[in-house]
Amino acid sequence: MGPRVERLTAIDTSIPVPKYHQLKQILREKIDSGEWMPGELLPSENELCAQYKVSRTTVRQTMAALVAEGLVTREQGRGTFVARPKLVQGLMGFYSFTEEISKMGLRPRSDVLKLGTCPATKTVAKRLAVAEGDEVVFLTRLRLASEEPIMFETSYLPHALCPGLAEKDLSSRPLYTVLREDYGLELSRAREEFQPALADDYEARWLGIDAGSPVLLLERVAFMAVEGEGDRPLEFCRSVVRGDRCRFYVELPRRT
Amino acid sequence: MGPRVERLTAIDTSIPVPKYHQLKQILREKIDSGEWMPGELLPSENELCAQYKVSRTTVRQTMAALVAEGLVTREQGRGTFVARPKLVQGLMGFYSFTEEISKMGLRPRSDVLKLGTCPATKTVAKRLAVAEGDEVVFLTRLRLASEEPIMFETSYLPHALCPGLAEKDLSSRPLYTVLREDYGLELSRAREEFQPALADDYEARWLGIDAGSPVLLLERVAFMAVEGEGDRPLEFCRSVVRGDRCRFYVELPRRT
Repeated sequence: MGPRVERLTAIDTSIPVPKYHQLKQILREKIDSGEWMPGELLPSENELCAQYKVSRTTVRQTMAALVAEGLVTREQGRGTFVARPKLVQGLMGFYSFTEEISKMGLRPRSDVLKLGTCPATKTVAKRLAVAEGDEVVFLTRLRLASEEPIMFETSYLPHALCPGLAEKDLSSRPLYTVLREDYGLELSRAREEFQPALADDYEARWLGIDAGSPVLLLERVAFMAVEGEGDRPLEFCRSVVRGDRCRFYVELPRRT
Repeated sequence: MGPRVERLTAIDTSIPVPKYHQLKQILREKIDSGEWMPGELLPSENELCAQYKVSRTTVRQTMAALVAEGLVTREQGRGTFVARPKLVQGLMGFYSFTEEISKMGLRPRSDVLKLGTCPATKTVAKRLAVAEGDEVVFLTRLRLASEEPIMFETSYLPHALCPGLAEKDLSSRPLYTVLREDYGLELSRAREEFQPALADDYEARWLGIDAGSPVLLLERVAFMAVEGEGDRPLEFCRSVVRGDRCRFYVELPRRT
């Protein structure tokens, strides 16, 4: 049945768990628990080798994993530091990136990279419940929090519901505000699907991270209520979100 | 403002988007839309080079990204195939891995790797609302769907709520069933946090994937209702979930 005690303070050589994996758990615990605070300088490689009785290779492997997860950051010539805490976003945040980021005390910004119309591909058509080839508006944006890129996303909307949207200035007013004020369209609910992935070079460049870094792929369909008809898809959105800077949470209600 | 038409059928050399990123989107569309079906053999590298007028390097870079995302699989000497569809799990699935996997028509299995008690670390104590050093039960399990490893997870529970749990046989009965039947403890709700990460060698070995593959880290606190007291944490669980085989979804209710 394996060991009966799980230690998180020293490397246990009696168990078949690699040392770097144990060291990662030990250091993560120090960060999660707040024993090591954001901005704090970590012990040097030599100190960690001595303290945990592990090789330099083990320490380096551990550090690389902690960097990829965004728990620590390396600064050339200065050392390794505990990273700033991640932005913790509720999935409900879909209602407004602007609002959600402001609530964290950060300055939201959205750079419009592409805006236009195109015929719906099969997938986009299916998600928006329109016919393949129907005109849709597409909008690619880089979302930033206090000048730091956080997510890279493309939205698709049925052109018939918001004609002229592709000619609007969407850098100064949030999309959902424009939909509400200019078209009288109000979101009602959403379905979100997500999975982990690796950033490719292109996404990484926009997000200011290394290619191969962990990202979350989010796909959202947001619906609007239509009088007497139920819900209708208004937006299909694909986002690539930085894993080193964001965590998400969701409250799961009671089962009924 | 950039291009006004977004094509997803051919590489557009007039836009500043790398060819492999465009090719990835084109091929993903074919898979997402069902134009290419699971199990179908993809065109060869040569065919893709010719069809999309790109270099072999571009095709290889694209394929590597699609493999990492779990959209295609490579079979030595046979070619590259569209992967089986991912398991799509509701976050609500936390109520029972066994139930959720059975609903998909697969056979759930849980291998108990470690079971014992230990003093709560600072982080575990905080999540479970117990004191640091209080005895907690820990349980590490590998969850499989029809013999395929899906997630690797460790649960912590306050020992005081379920004394003797570490001596139970948890391989034949689901944890939540044991808690209900043997201790009268019923889950009420949960809070889940998640972020993307890279599998380390150890996790990768258990999950049967390559180190560095994208995984989802899930942290869940499940609560039980206590008469006249509100909710109390019953379980803190950390899971590492294969990104190439799982997607999650969540329905976001109307904002009230």
